[in-house]
Amino acid sequence: MLQFVSPSKCLDFGLSKREAFFKNEPPTAKFDPTTRDKLDHKMDKEKENGHPETSGKAPKELDGYVGFANLPNQVYRKSVKRGFEFTLMVVGQSGLGKSTLINTLFLTDLYSADYPGPSYRIKKTVQVETTQVLLKEGGVQLRLTVVDTPGFGDAVDNSNCWQPVTDYIDSKYEEYLNAESRVNRKTMPDNRVHCCLYFITPSGHGLKPLDVEFMKRLHDKVNIIPMIAKADTMTPDECREFKKTILNEIAQHKIKIYEFPECDDEEENKLQKKLKDRVPFAVVGSNTLVSVGGKTVRARQYPWGIVEVENLEHNDFLALRNMLVRTHLHDLKDVTNNVHYENYRYNKLASVATKGKEKAVGSKELNLETAEDEDSGEKYYSVFFSLHKYGI
Amino acid sequence: MLQFVSPSKCLDFGLSKREAFFKNEPPTAKFDPTTRDKLDHKMDKEKENGHPETSGKAPKELDGYVGFANLPNQVYRKSVKRGFEFTLMVVGQSGLGKSTLINTLFLTDLYSADYPGPSYRIKKTVQVETTQVLLKEGGVQLRLTVVDTPGFGDAVDNSNCWQPVTDYIDSKYEEYLNAESRVNRKTMPDNRVHCCLYFITPSGHGLKPLDVEFMKRLHDKVNIIPMIAKADTMTPDECREFKKTILNEIAQHKIKIYEFPECDDEEENKLQKKLKDRVPFAVVGSNTLVSVGGKTVRARQYPWGIVEVENLEHNDFLALRNMLVRTHLHDLKDVTNNVHYENYRYNKLASVATKGKEKAVGSKELNLETAEDEDSGEKYYSVFFSLHKYGI
Repeated sequence: MLQFVSPSKCLDFGLSKREAFFKNEPPTAKFDPTTRDKLDHKMDKEKENGHPETSGKAPKELDGYVGFANLPNQVYRKSVKRGFEFTLMVVGQSGLGKSTLINTLFLTDLYSADYPGPSYRIKKTVQVETTQVLLKEGGVQLRLTVVDTPGFGDAVDNSNCWQPVTDYIDSKYEEYLNAESRVNRKTMPDNRVHCCLYFITPSGHGLKPLDVEFMKRLHDKVNIIPMIAKADTMTPDECREFKKTILNEIAQHKIKIYEFPECDDEEENKLQKKLKDRVPFAVVGSNTLVSVGGKTVRARQYPWGIVEVENLEHNDFLALRNMLVRTHLHDLKDVTNNVHYENYRYNKLASVATKGKEKAVGSKELNLETAEDEDSGEKYYSVFFSLHKYGI
Repeated sequence: MLQFVSPSKCLDFGLSKREAFFKNEPPTAKFDPTTRDKLDHKMDKEKENGHPETSGKAPKELDGYVGFANLPNQVYRKSVKRGFEFTLMVVGQSGLGKSTLINTLFLTDLYSADYPGPSYRIKKTVQVETTQVLLKEGGVQLRLTVVDTPGFGDAVDNSNCWQPVTDYIDSKYEEYLNAESRVNRKTMPDNRVHCCLYFITPSGHGLKPLDVEFMKRLHDKVNIIPMIAKADTMTPDECREFKKTILNEIAQHKIKIYEFPECDDEEENKLQKKLKDRVPFAVVGSNTLVSVGGKTVRARQYPWGIVEVENLEHNDFLALRNMLVRTHLHDLKDVTNNVHYENYRYNKLASVATKGKEKAVGSKELNLETAEDEDSGEKYYSVFFSLHKYGI
């Protein structure tokens, strides 16, 4: 089938309907992905009517196989060849099993006796610590960066304990913006934080003020997936109630957690809905292998029974892994790039421009500032130069 | 298998070995994709030695299926959902069958009696004309833009007849650079020319000076695929000889035509090599359907026989379509983005910076220039602001 439609409107540049979710951006963030939906919508209409603007011709038939249906395969191959990179941030009080969960999630001893989790190494104040690992599975290469925040929420006074976290996220956006603005763009490593797993204490009482505060300050910077840690301390009924309380509080405080998008396939949507309904994921992690019914599985052995990690009747670990790794890893990267990063970039450039206008700073001073960023002939643009525009 | 390697070096950001081909860039083009190969190489070594810099640990085993091997499938789906866009330029004297070939290539009457090829509509001077069509095949949507250059080489004096073509290509790069530099980047349509099919007259004598001149001026701006038009005027022996002459002249004049990259699969490489060896593709196009042996095929019927378009013993059309559409469309886009566009951007920004330095122009004047580019609150950065850096 060949169809003529208005070419200026015939592509969906990156985002889909669900981003209506991001409608409530703060007024400073001008970037509104929902405008794209309108374009899509118009395009659909044109297709139906068969009266596009460009050609004025009705759809025509292709009388054979041209072969561009193979394009997605070309994209597939190239992506395998290039490899993938993903940065996962874990935030939550120490002792909630963050390191163990990461080990369980990627079936690797990222943290071990030789190299224990950050909380065993770093103390007192909130720090940000990154660990990188190159994983390979079925010919697909993934450079995984885990960003941990030891010390988060552990102090008596936890005011501003989200600051190092927001600083880290912003600094990675800034790095990327600088890389993107260079004249000579040889490498563009993407170290932006693509997802933040936020661990909630299994108290049964709801969110703490710190939880609310943290998520509110981070939700328009990063994709937040809330989790209930050490879920084996709650009975199924308690867990259900606790989840309901948490979701209510999240809605009440207008916190925007990462919304798993619907996919086009009806069947798969049904499957995914079941997993999606388990948010916030109540998980149990384990580094220990236990023999259960002849099979060796990751589990926690108690005198009253064995909690199997990969058992959906025991906890939501499988749901988390499926949604996070198997079906939505790429979407998390896309939303980071198309929504959070674009917002950061917009605010950064717009605010610099406004400041410059207000202060009317002399350009000579600013040149000194930018000169420091020069490195062996490589120059940075955009951010600093906007100052000149309004500054002079 | 889990392997620890130096994370800063573990990804191939976009380009592969064959880009050694682009080594001979003119001195102004600083962008050298081959530097990436060195990084890759170092990484390979590290993997072999098992002594990476980051962790100091030997590779470890994954004890199960994590699921990120599904990442390429996520990319695949997203690409289908978004749709594709491709811009194909055809250049060559009128009457060489460019419009017919485009019709044949995409099995569509892009040009017809109602809307004839550009040479029937536009006369005398070289103009650039674009036609867009939305094609759909097996659920994959392709917005195809065909850029034609009626009048090319048709005049008595053809000096500078490549100018409108280079201007067009540059203007699309500039558009993209501007879109990329906006503060509010809502849409980023890609109208850059991804491939130029250059039609050589089937003279049997080799390239004309205009052919050489054109390709030399365009080869570092766009992917050129040379073709011999109307190949049914040559016997197989004549065709072989003609191709040899052309390739020799191309080498002699150091013209860099698009190099079809090797793929990882040995079997497929062998298959592709056979097709690749047919460059420059000697093709025959046809809008006429002829019945041959009970089958209806696109062909040209002569009193002495029928030339079948899709018969590799008659001409190279199938080789062209396979290489262009089925296997390398995405790579053509990638090379355009990673090599040609990056070169354009580098030269643009670097030259603006240098000019600014030499002239030491006052900033007030420049502000007037940039102000014209402002459109409903959207601001352009990078290019113009670099002037301020050196100008003050």
